[in-house]
Amino acid sequence: MGRVTVRRPVLTLDATGGRRRSDALAGEEPLELRVNGEPLAVTMRTPGHDVELAHGFLLGEGVIGAATDVGSARFCDSRDEDGRHTYNVLDIALAAGVPPPADGVTRSVYTTSSCGVCGKASLEAVRLTSRFPPAADPVTLTPAVLSTLPDTLRAAQKVFRATGGLHAAGLFTVDGELLGAREDVGRHNAVDKVLGRALLDRRVPAAGCVLMVSGRASFELVQKAVLAGVPVLAAVSAPSSLAVELAEDAGVTLVGFLRGDSMNVYTRQDRIEEGATARIALG
Amino acid sequence: MGRVTVRRPVLTLDATGGRRRSDALAGEEPLELRVNGEPLAVTMRTPGHDVELAHGFLLGEGVIGAATDVGSARFCDSRDEDGRHTYNVLDIALAAGVPPPADGVTRSVYTTSSCGVCGKASLEAVRLTSRFPPAADPVTLTPAVLSTLPDTLRAAQKVFRATGGLHAAGLFTVDGELLGAREDVGRHNAVDKVLGRALLDRRVPAAGCVLMVSGRASFELVQKAVLAGVPVLAAVSAPSSLAVELAEDAGVTLVGFLRGDSMNVYTRQDRIEEGATARIALG
Repeated sequence: MGRVTVRRPVLTLDATGGRRRSDALAGEEPLELRVNGEPLAVTMRTPGHDVELAHGFLLGEGVIGAATDVGSARFCDSRDEDGRHTYNVLDIALAAGVPPPADGVTRSVYTTSSCGVCGKASLEAVRLTSRFPPAADPVTLTPAVLSTLPDTLRAAQKVFRATGGLHAAGLFTVDGELLGAREDVGRHNAVDKVLGRALLDRRVPAAGCVLMVSGRASFELVQKAVLAGVPVLAAVSAPSSLAVELAEDAGVTLVGFLRGDSMNVYTRQDRIEEGATARIALG
Repeated sequence: MGRVTVRRPVLTLDATGGRRRSDALAGEEPLELRVNGEPLAVTMRTPGHDVELAHGFLLGEGVIGAATDVGSARFCDSRDEDGRHTYNVLDIALAAGVPPPADGVTRSVYTTSSCGVCGKASLEAVRLTSRFPPAADPVTLTPAVLSTLPDTLRAAQKVFRATGGLHAAGLFTVDGELLGAREDVGRHNAVDKVLGRALLDRRVPAAGCVLMVSGRASFELVQKAVLAGVPVLAAVSAPSSLAVELAEDAGVTLVGFLRGDSMNVYTRQDRIEEGATARIALG
């Protein structure tokens, strides 16, 4: 696309003085997502993998559950002042018989048109129902495998190496094999792109898989995992209280502070083969 | 509030084995923001400072420009299943004569009801016009002062120390004095709380001030700075391409990768007293 990174002049200052140079920045542009021609949402994203992003977004909102729920994805003919195609408006035509999103679909992107929060417990007010509840997934995995995921994900982050400024998400097998990784200026977008790719690859529900994210685990990232049927979510940084609450309720194993050999397991600890830690110590 | 941190049991695994303990998590709950009784947006936030959050949010959306634009802020009587007040629905009554938000106001929170992106350049499609354009602010500051801001902000992060999982924002004078700092699970919320506090303290437009954020500088954070009249935005991590584009266009000095004595200045470098770097080297 040529817009994944953008070069800009910069003045770098440090103890030795200042120097002017060219810096690579992570690309950020708005993407307007339409469904059946109707505007649904605008997200600020790093251009590229936009069709995956759209599939993952609609999966996470409960609008689609399979690649066959989408009839076509088409960039609208939007142009900037110079007549260049912006590729910033994407229209998803749902397959015949797939209901379009309800008005309330955008609540997980922070808006509501209904009284969703009033008079309900926090979790009930904002959670969506998954077609692929991961609670019954019998998968187990070892701390040794989990400890390899951050390095594997980082090695796949090409744009981060150039810019130092991107979030990443990766989908792994429980043996630590990377199925796919994506980077984006937005945490949610990186996850949407990875899960959208999985959907297109007929890997949803993502039974037996681990979703790894480079930052924190918020409520909304857990929700995206649940909607895709992912049984294990691992994060480099901390989870929020509502993330843990939803993970417990939905039967997702939530791992936080995954750094080196160390990690915190907040929920569904029965999926972690604890005896394996001894092997790390001896290894 | 008692909900800023939440304690949960956790299994910690490392090379020495596993141990069960109690962990402090950053609180996250939905806040439904209403204006004149009409639902406007839901944000996932750390409870507390919600009135500041609402003021900052509405300032950043161009709905209000002064504390006197708000008539009252009132928590609705929302209750959970156990009859407890949730404090998760906040209604802002605008002062007489202040127009309520237009339908398109929520676009910076990622949704749109209009064809905002189609046929426009990226920046023009999403930017808002500020009542307090910071371009003409004559303030200057030294790299030495900038290099003190991250440590000062970190020292103010009480909840981060307990949970390791929160974003922070702080408003500073150009002499490095901290005017106010806030933490939140959401980057945008931390900025909204700081700028909302500034608005309530009659410090908006925030001429001569520096806004410091703990993470990356996205387009939306620059936009919030511009709407509050902040002339300098500094971030610990990288800016995105659109953040730099907007900062240049709006006349904001954008500093990224502010770590120790080192920093990148992307825009309006004329506000940085470059000669002062020699004093750092000699100091």
